[in-house]
Amino acid sequence: MVDVPGVSSGKKSPDARQITTVYIMLLVAAGIGFFVIRDFGEKLAARPVISSPAAIASGTLPQSHLLPQVLVALVVVISVARILGFVCQRLGQPRVIGEVIAGIALGPSLFGRIAPDAMAFVFPSAVSPVLGILAQLGVILYMFLVGLELNSELLRSRAHATVAISHASITGPFLLGAALALTAYSSYAPAGVTFTSFALFLGVAMSITAFPVLARILTDLRLDKTELGVIALGCAAIDDVTAWCLLAFVVGVTKADLYGALMTVMLAGCYLGIMFGVARPLIMRYLAPLKNAELSVNVTAWVLVAVLASAVMTELIGIHAIFGAFLLGAVIPHDGHIAGSFRHKLEDVVSILLLPAFFAYTGTRTQIGLLSEWSDWWFCSLIILVATLGKFGGTLVASRFTGLDWRTSASLGILMNTRGLMELIVLNIGLDLGVISPTLFAMMVLMALVTTIATTPLLRMLLPGCPPSAGGSDQPDAEGFRA
Amino acid sequence: MVDVPGVSSGKKSPDARQITTVYIMLLVAAGIGFFVIRDFGEKLAARPVISSPAAIASGTLPQSHLLPQVLVALVVVISVARILGFVCQRLGQPRVIGEVIAGIALGPSLFGRIAPDAMAFVFPSAVSPVLGILAQLGVILYMFLVGLELNSELLRSRAHATVAISHASITGPFLLGAALALTAYSSYAPAGVTFTSFALFLGVAMSITAFPVLARILTDLRLDKTELGVIALGCAAIDDVTAWCLLAFVVGVTKADLYGALMTVMLAGCYLGIMFGVARPLIMRYLAPLKNAELSVNVTAWVLVAVLASAVMTELIGIHAIFGAFLLGAVIPHDGHIAGSFRHKLEDVVSILLLPAFFAYTGTRTQIGLLSEWSDWWFCSLIILVATLGKFGGTLVASRFTGLDWRTSASLGILMNTRGLMELIVLNIGLDLGVISPTLFAMMVLMALVTTIATTPLLRMLLPGCPPSAGGSDQPDAEGFRA
Repeated sequence: MVDVPGVSSGKKSPDARQITTVYIMLLVAAGIGFFVIRDFGEKLAARPVISSPAAIASGTLPQSHLLPQVLVALVVVISVARILGFVCQRLGQPRVIGEVIAGIALGPSLFGRIAPDAMAFVFPSAVSPVLGILAQLGVILYMFLVGLELNSELLRSRAHATVAISHASITGPFLLGAALALTAYSSYAPAGVTFTSFALFLGVAMSITAFPVLARILTDLRLDKTELGVIALGCAAIDDVTAWCLLAFVVGVTKADLYGALMTVMLAGCYLGIMFGVARPLIMRYLAPLKNAELSVNVTAWVLVAVLASAVMTELIGIHAIFGAFLLGAVIPHDGHIAGSFRHKLEDVVSILLLPAFFAYTGTRTQIGLLSEWSDWWFCSLIILVATLGKFGGTLVASRFTGLDWRTSASLGILMNTRGLMELIVLNIGLDLGVISPTLFAMMVLMALVTTIATTPLLRMLLPGCPPSAGGSDQPDAEGFRA
Repeated sequence: MVDVPGVSSGKKSPDARQITTVYIMLLVAAGIGFFVIRDFGEKLAARPVISSPAAIASGTLPQSHLLPQVLVALVVVISVARILGFVCQRLGQPRVIGEVIAGIALGPSLFGRIAPDAMAFVFPSAVSPVLGILAQLGVILYMFLVGLELNSELLRSRAHATVAISHASITGPFLLGAALALTAYSSYAPAGVTFTSFALFLGVAMSITAFPVLARILTDLRLDKTELGVIALGCAAIDDVTAWCLLAFVVGVTKADLYGALMTVMLAGCYLGIMFGVARPLIMRYLAPLKNAELSVNVTAWVLVAVLASAVMTELIGIHAIFGAFLLGAVIPHDGHIAGSFRHKLEDVVSILLLPAFFAYTGTRTQIGLLSEWSDWWFCSLIILVATLGKFGGTLVASRFTGLDWRTSASLGILMNTRGLMELIVLNIGLDLGVISPTLFAMMVLMALVTTIATTPLLRMLLPGCPPSAGGSDQPDAEGFRA
């Protein structure tokens, strides 16, 4: 574009040929120069440096071998998740199903069984903590996004009925889950776990509804603007909040004695109060002038710091890091397009890179091989049955009671039975706490898969007017965050 | 919005009071139900499960302690980087300077010296490999973004003169760096490194120009549309490509014998050919229909997989993972807004979360305390002098020769002396390879800092017409990627 030579200089500039000649001479001279220096240098003795321990520590690295291993693992994890997600989408299932199956398939249940050597190559033991951290970072950011999404429309000004349906849809599976603990405790509880913790956890784990997956299914079936869709989203939102509060309590009870648990609950209450009473108005004031402007990197950076700091706070309080992230998402103001802007900035990296790592991480912990006997499979079926009965039954009864017709009530019951990704998050927390055994973990993962897979076909049967598989929809928004 | 009860049902629906009553009864019943179950359950014997080794492996976790540590470290790293970046921006310096200083300050040079206990708390040893992987992922994605940026305008149809200036600005510091190796080899080369590797590496490390930081400085000083700016950007682009090629060669030489190095160079050549000959047309055809559409999550995901896979390929070939990422960025088509769209999706996460991790990682490896004697500081000053002389001198002579006036030539020389982030990437590779000692690493980091800091004030002195500090500009684009 700009003719460089001789524009700003009065001097006659050399032509291209001259420049080329000098240029070649320069390169030759440089080559010769280097070899002369090298000749001198090679005669120098290589005096070994007296390395200090610190120097050795930062000089030698198992690090440099870790990077290619992590890269290979990520390439495999993302690719398999995309492929199976695509297949599931074509089959009219939410993409997340395929991604969860991809994670399980890459774990010891399938990949490790048919090709243990290849698995050891793709996922060497050094990679798994890194994958674990990426997974947990992913879940923290994901829960922040869920918090952002949740607040927006659904939690405000809901009718009594929605709250009642929602809580009935929690109470049902919670009690059935706790009752199931009676038979499960002696064979599937890890040593040293009290019955109270075990029963509470099983109850909560049964009561989860996956708000994001539900929203995705409703969009796919074009039900999101219908009465059913609006009630379902409202119930799922309240379900989520309630179940997370319960889980926080359970984590408190499990980690400590009664005194400790009460302390945890009190601190969590204080934190909740501070977040809504102090942080929310401050954030409002800080972000208000930006309501309709593009978010700057600076604001994004500080919100991200706030998300991580809030996660640390809840972790210190004794509930899980994800609560802090979720809470921070919930207190971000939703007028203007600030919330949407954050989602837009984060969702791709979270859904493409970090969530598949979470599914793979969950997959490596899911050992379906532990279900070795018929009694295990029988109990696994019982879990699926109880979870479905509790969720479906509780919702159905409450919906009928509040005056919905049979078909709407039944559809709502089926929808609330969607467990998806949320269930996996809860189960991983349970496994981390040691409140469920790896065997029970595998069973519950299967339960989450089956109940989520069942939702779409059952709903289609009940509502024949639904559009056919919306598998082809490839909108960034719908596919990214909600799938 | 939707009045839930009684809309879709013919039955008379209960009023809010009824619902509330039943709801409270439900909660009470649930509470009683749980305590009844608990009463039964607590009489059950907690039979310890016979845990299989696999069960123990996935049940117990050092993992769960790692997450809060990583979160705390990230909060500190991002916050300090933002604050010092902001301070530097106010001082009219590029933000990256502040972020690099933040990294060094958080390392053993400052934080570890004044508060070793606090440092051990914020950065326990278990966190550092995770930080390292985040840092390296950050650099890989960053180099992909640089590749994307580079191709767009500057590498095509450049005049001979620009190439000549650029290569002169590499030859100068390269030869001086290699000559410097003559004095440095006996005291600062790690044991077992040949002189050839050492001299080659020092030469390359001296020749780096940071294209992204340079672009940022030019924008800040509103020089990016001037003749000087256009030439500088063109030279820096060619500089970058040339220096990376040289570095790939040096890495090949250092890692293997001559035969191995030739093999590496040949493989790298083949890979380059495949990328431009095969991959580029394929990508073109795949992405062409999307030219002006919003990028879907699916396309983004597969491009990300391609970036990581390309990074693995170059790592396997024997050059560094970043080359693959850079190369993939360079072959992505730049017409339409595809490249811009990728940048938009990735740059925030990279610049907010991952690059500060890289600076902190570099900081933990930079032990300024190793420069314990006067002779070390003297040599460090010599490095800064030689690096500046080589870069400034080489550029000045070549610019004058191609016909630019003194002032433009001198300005160009000053600009090309900007080393910034790129230099740190190269230095980390050198430290990983063991071709430079931690002491020399610290000296070179200081050199990168000083040369980058010097650019803006010197340029202002030379070009008094420049606008005052553009510190306040907080545009997402300029600040994010280029800073």
